[in-house]
Amino acid sequence: MTEPPVAPLAVPIGAAAYRARRERVAALARAAGADVSVWWANHRVSYLSGFAFVPTERPIALVIAVDGETVLFVPRLELEHAQAYAHVDRVEAYPEFPGERHPMHVLADLLRSLGLRARLAGDGEGYPKVMGYTGPRVTDLTDATFTALDDELERMMQVKGDDEIALIRESARWAGRAHRLLQDLTRPGLSETEVEQAVTAQATKELLDAYQGTYRAFTWGLAGPWATYRGQVGPHSAFPHALNVNAVFAPGDTLVTGATCPMFGYWSELERSMVLGEPSAEQRTWFAHMLALQDLAIDACRPGRTCSSVDRAVRAYVERHGIGHTWRHHVGHNIGLRYHEGPFLDVGDDTVMEVGMLFTVEPGVYVPGLGGFRHSDTILVSASGPEFLTDYPRELDDLVIPA
Amino acid sequence: MTEPPVAPLAVPIGAAAYRARRERVAALARAAGADVSVWWANHRVSYLSGFAFVPTERPIALVIAVDGETVLFVPRLELEHAQAYAHVDRVEAYPEFPGERHPMHVLADLLRSLGLRARLAGDGEGYPKVMGYTGPRVTDLTDATFTALDDELERMMQVKGDDEIALIRESARWAGRAHRLLQDLTRPGLSETEVEQAVTAQATKELLDAYQGTYRAFTWGLAGPWATYRGQVGPHSAFPHALNVNAVFAPGDTLVTGATCPMFGYWSELERSMVLGEPSAEQRTWFAHMLALQDLAIDACRPGRTCSSVDRAVRAYVERHGIGHTWRHHVGHNIGLRYHEGPFLDVGDDTVMEVGMLFTVEPGVYVPGLGGFRHSDTILVSASGPEFLTDYPRELDDLVIPA
Repeated sequence: MTEPPVAPLAVPIGAAAYRARRERVAALARAAGADVSVWWANHRVSYLSGFAFVPTERPIALVIAVDGETVLFVPRLELEHAQAYAHVDRVEAYPEFPGERHPMHVLADLLRSLGLRARLAGDGEGYPKVMGYTGPRVTDLTDATFTALDDELERMMQVKGDDEIALIRESARWAGRAHRLLQDLTRPGLSETEVEQAVTAQATKELLDAYQGTYRAFTWGLAGPWATYRGQVGPHSAFPHALNVNAVFAPGDTLVTGATCPMFGYWSELERSMVLGEPSAEQRTWFAHMLALQDLAIDACRPGRTCSSVDRAVRAYVERHGIGHTWRHHVGHNIGLRYHEGPFLDVGDDTVMEVGMLFTVEPGVYVPGLGGFRHSDTILVSASGPEFLTDYPRELDDLVIPA
Repeated sequence: MTEPPVAPLAVPIGAAAYRARRERVAALARAAGADVSVWWANHRVSYLSGFAFVPTERPIALVIAVDGETVLFVPRLELEHAQAYAHVDRVEAYPEFPGERHPMHVLADLLRSLGLRARLAGDGEGYPKVMGYTGPRVTDLTDATFTALDDELERMMQVKGDDEIALIRESARWAGRAHRLLQDLTRPGLSETEVEQAVTAQATKELLDAYQGTYRAFTWGLAGPWATYRGQVGPHSAFPHALNVNAVFAPGDTLVTGATCPMFGYWSELERSMVLGEPSAEQRTWFAHMLALQDLAIDACRPGRTCSSVDRAVRAYVERHGIGHTWRHHVGHNIGLRYHEGPFLDVGDDTVMEVGMLFTVEPGVYVPGLGGFRHSDTILVSASGPEFLTDYPRELDDLVIPA
């Protein structure tokens, strides 16, 4: 994409979809013999209610009775915010954490009023230790035993619906636009930080102009298209998960990028290897290995195959070409409301790929002293095979920045 | 502060400080009868080693033998990165998660080689379910029992050393600069997003110019001064934890801001209530209540007093003035490597304040239909009383933006 998109293509997920998701959860809880289920992890709460929020030391929980009745349990400071945005039957607030009466006692009362007697289900017996939170588990305060259903909910979240895929496709479109600006604005003598910020500002302005007030990120912090080097500039790019070091670009640099855009809570991932100035023979060799690895990995993303088979195909290539010293990590991960989620394209994950799963496909090659080489595309497993949701040039000739 | 700072005032924490912190942890583990301790939470790993990283589904753990020998356990992709940045005795890498052999089995071997026999200590028996991670606990794979020392480490982290305070003070200086730009650049017809991005870009450029290559954020994502409205514009500012809604500024808006700057991993917090155009009588009244609340709360931050007493003083004022309908949350939280950490300025937290603790002091008043009113300053509990680390005007006349 070389021109900014002009029309908005995404709309937020609606109340009926959230209700349908919760009905599936209620059915799981009934099947587990539970009286009620409780969900703590912030993205799971968002998945089931549409309420996006800043998780803090103050517990937030989504409570679903077995008949589907749903109550969002929030601290007082989130009451009106939740009432305005959450698709639930009602919102109940406790004053504060830790407060005069600890919120877990308030929640235990609420759970009892919704039918909790013998068995609680959900993704935990209590709120995790977020930002200094401490407190008893619900099961410490009631006679209920606990059945974990987090793996079941994760399996639901792993397979995306058409409404979710549309948002991730739109995220990818804006990631592509931000990446185009990143490539165009990078030049020797500038720092990664100033280029990133200029790109982010321009791409975000374009998005806001296109959406005319209807865009929402549903995230804390980043609220528009973003493209970054996060420290992967020159030899430092050989660290696959480097952090920003305010690198200044110089001719000859090997570069690894990242771009995304939160779209009503959903994410995509686009990464590219680029070279500043005419690539050396060594850079061409490693780039070609990386591209061959990504080609074969993408081709392997098909329904009915295992995730592990994708990673095994990559590792076989690495072994066959004697480049094991450049290998650093598995092929990729699922993506959705979270930037990483399972299953993983890894030799140890035998999950069978299904239509509607998404994967970042991003095998890398890392050469100390020279740099790293990694593309990442967001790939949909469709009935007819792998489908690119990201759309950006992948060949080296298209990824050389004039020095 | 109205002019950009020109000299850098902060340096990263050195190897000796990390070693001293770990020696205290090793002593705690010895006192608990443990053979070895293991630390999983990413900011605790950073606190004890200086290694900042992106936490993913791949477990990272810091292992400290009772004699103080320290090994950082990382996935292959972080090996060279950790070797370059972590202040530890050595780094050990496992291939990948989940991998052909699950990393917890590799870690169990490492722990045994470092002396684990009967008792493990630390902040958890296994890696938490980050980004889709699943796996056994270390205690499932060994004969060891587990003693939690996370509360003890939290108490260490709650009281800051001079090296940490210097970084937070410098963070506050740059937060102030970003806030000055935010106030200067906001005007009717612009959107919160475009103003935020312009501010962030300019303040970051100033910081990079001042530091001449020596600045590091040690964070993932944000890498410089940042100022934001995060949706708290006009009536939407009545949601204490709103998210960005791309609000467009209009005369009469009540505004609540936030500003910070990551400084070698450490944070400060600066927030201000502002008004766009001549304040109404109603805005003046609520602003005055908010300022009175913050004054009395700051004055109460003294060594030997309890955290709960600060919140009680605020709540007494609220009750005395009959404004309980505008109350939404407790007074504040400790801050350091994490943006929120305990103890909390809350009626339910009877921690006694000590010299070296830091608090955000941020009581708020929220009026549906009109907006929210909240200042936050980062306050050091010093022997002589409360000390402002943030330095920015607090009076309404200084916080009116021309409409």
